Amino acid sequence: MPSISSKGLEMPASPIRKLTPYADKAKQEGKHIYHLNIGQPDIETPQVMLDAIKSISFKVWAYTPSEGTASYRNKLSTYYNELGYGITAQDILVTNGGSEAITIAMQACINPGEEIIIPEPFYANYNGFARSAGIIIKPILSYIDDGFALPPIAAFEELITNKTKAIAICNPNNPTGYLYSRKELEALRELCLKHDLFLLADEAYREFCYDGREFLSPMHLEGLEQHVVVLDTVSKRYSACGARLGCMITKNSALWNTALKFAQARLSPPAVAQIAAEAAVDTPQQYFDAVKAEYTDRRDVLVAGLNRISGVYCPNPGGAFYVVARFPIDNADRFCQWMLEHFAYENQTVMMAPATGFYSTADAGTNEVRLAYVLNTADLKKALVCLEKGLAEYPGRRV
Amino acid sequence: MPSISSKGLEMPASPIRKLTPYADKAKQEGKHIYHLNIGQPDIETPQVMLDAIKSISFKVWAYTPSEGTASYRNKLSTYYNELGYGITAQDILVTNGGSEAITIAMQACINPGEEIIIPEPFYANYNGFARSAGIIIKPILSYIDDGFALPPIAAFEELITNKTKAIAICNPNNPTGYLYSRKELEALRELCLKHDLFLLADEAYREFCYDGREFLSPMHLEGLEQHVVVLDTVSKRYSACGARLGCMITKNSALWNTALKFAQARLSPPAVAQIAAEAAVDTPQQYFDAVKAEYTDRRDVLVAGLNRISGVYCPNPGGAFYVVARFPIDNADRFCQWMLEHFAYENQTVMMAPATGFYSTADAGTNEVRLAYVLNTADLKKALVCLEKGLAEYPGRRV
Ligand SMILES: Cc1ncc(COP(=O)(O)O)c(C=O)c1O
Ligand SMILES: Cc1ncc(COP(=O)(O)O)c(C=O)c1O
Repeated sequence: MPSISSKGLEMPASPIRKLTPYADKAKQEGKHIYHLNIGQPDIETPQVMLDAIKSISFKVWAYTPSEGTASYRNKLSTYYNELGYGITAQDILVTNGGSEAITIAMQACINPGEEIIIPEPFYANYNGFARSAGIIIKPILSYIDDGFALPPIAAFEELITNKTKAIAICNPNNPTGYLYSRKELEALRELCLKHDLFLLADEAYREFCYDGREFLSPMHLEGLEQHVVVLDTVSKRYSACGARLGCMITKNSALWNTALKFAQARLSPPAVAQIAAEAAVDTPQQYFDAVKAEYTDRRDVLVAGLNRISGVYCPNPGGAFYVVARFPIDNADRFCQWMLEHFAYENQTVMMAPATGFYSTADAGTNEVRLAYVLNTADLKKALVCLEKGLAEYPGRRV
Repeated sequence: MPSISSKGLEMPASPIRKLTPYADKAKQEGKHIYHLNIGQPDIETPQVMLDAIKSISFKVWAYTPSEGTASYRNKLSTYYNELGYGITAQDILVTNGGSEAITIAMQACINPGEEIIIPEPFYANYNGFARSAGIIIKPILSYIDDGFALPPIAAFEELITNKTKAIAICNPNNPTGYLYSRKELEALRELCLKHDLFLLADEAYREFCYDGREFLSPMHLEGLEQHVVVLDTVSKRYSACGARLGCMITKNSALWNTALKFAQARLSPPAVAQIAAEAAVDTPQQYFDAVKAEYTDRRDVLVAGLNRISGVYCPNPGGAFYVVARFPIDNADRFCQWMLEHFAYENQTVMMAPATGFYSTADAGTNEVRLAYVLNTADLKKALVCLEKGLAEYPGRRV
């Protein structure tokens, strides 16, 4: 039997998937699980998008251009230009989800063996994308006591070598929900200009900003036009994760053309998703208003509820639909597993993602947990009761 | 401005795309182009598949499991088992097109710097997939005078080193249309067993076998269960290229689990495509009979027509919808460009793919051209007239 590639063996397992067998077992035992572990929203997809799927009229389900259909890219550029990105349709490369946008951008910007700096905790799959491209991620710690704000620029400077090609941020952040300020983005601009680095901005959660705070993109900053690469997806914006549609945006045409070659090799992004996502650009504003109100309520319930539990600390983040909280526990991996394996309150338990999976630095985040507020407030309250009981009972409790 | 990754710069351009600007110009000049250059069939997608798209009933367009939905994998396993593959749903990993199946299989089987042997001419995008995975393709020449049959096993043996991890075949072949015989596949089996190599079989064109010849897969061979990886797609089978749905099949569970990690990083294959492709498994046999009859007619018209042109030789392939023909020309790249740029007969011309793009060996295929018979026979006949005139007029004609 042929032996398997060690590159494949080294691919990191996702922090959530490690818990799946325990969740399956808990379910088999008849326990009800509150799933605060995943980024799959329960929000309905806009009706215009679903209607567009049902109204397809083609007879041949054909490839689209590798960079996406002209029609979708045009429409999409109006969406970005309403946000003030000042782009043209030609700056957009349509991809198989945000996931592929990230992979292609990494491969187009960075050679194997070269480095990208990413504040951590960060979206765990960046590890997989980097690993499969042979790229090295240099993590830089952000801290829960700062609400996971951007680490000081001096800390970036310390990591920059002649191998550094890019910095990546996720804004608003998964897993922390942190929303970067204008000051932070401007500091990054100076840094990228000084060292001539690409700035990759994963904006999967752009639509989810709370408390009236405005979303700011590096695309809004002057002077950084040749450095910025925005990575986007319709997954969260329209609760259309199954569409598998994202895009990479850059005004740097040399970079765009390089990225296109990777896109050409895989031929085409999905056709029906492009039709649907084009229609989705006309989603009425009240859809987003309702979604934002709902998530704000959920966040408020969750953050307040967490901070009421003895020994728990949770910053109040400005965006996305995740929080990272500190628990009075010895080890988040053990605790999350224990909640599934050994705990129940009125036959219920809570599934969460240990934050360790979002850190690369050894021993970071061992007492932190990510919670996704993808359940309605009634369920969130019940989950909080469960969690409080679990924390009280947990044998590895620390103060 | 940051410099661009040289890996991206080294990504090979597709043999067809190089001609696109000339085709665009010809179109602007009002010339009619017979497109024999592309693998986008004009055949209609089965109605059951289109109906399934229009009948979607979900409210949340959600991620599916990374390996594909249980429901689609189950249904798909019945399709393969009717072909005698003897697999289970668990052996199937659903992917973003055949393209991603190939990428994931390469990455899961082969380390960066290690090698895969592929008979050439081969599907040009294998170069891009290998390049982005850091894998080295060792080409092995097959010859038009043998009808592009499998090169002798001794030629493979010469290329095998301790870096060789796999052999890949495409069956029926793109670009040659060659359909491998049982004897050839059995010889590959012995070779793979002897050297413990994976055998990757790209079966994108499985459904397109002519003259009553039976399709044989390495999946049908005994003793090779742990070595075979089938790479498949719905693109050509159901003329559903825009679905972006394929799969990787292997009975080697260690390999499957390794591949799954790459699939988990990108979260999910497209959801609507899986619903449609599940329905497509029930496509009535007369759909395939009609398609096969149509392609057989086209191939017969094209191959006979080509061989009637003075100085042209075209083998009669057993499958797919491509042929590679030898032309009395100095250089296929120049000729194909010239046909677009400088030639017209009754204001018409023909676009074809120079075969050079399908070879890695320097100077191979310089007088060969790939033609896709994706037009109806009436148009094919007109294209043949055009081509004959073009060959007669071409300044680089050789005898
Ligand atoms: C920060 C971030 N980026 C990218 C993605 C990828 O999303 P998709 O591939 O569904 O577009 C996700 C998904 O959860 C995410 O959280
Ligand atoms: C031999 C071969 N393999 C794989 C593919 C990829 O097809 P897709 O990604 O559309 O499934 C093609 C497409 O033309 C092909 O010709």
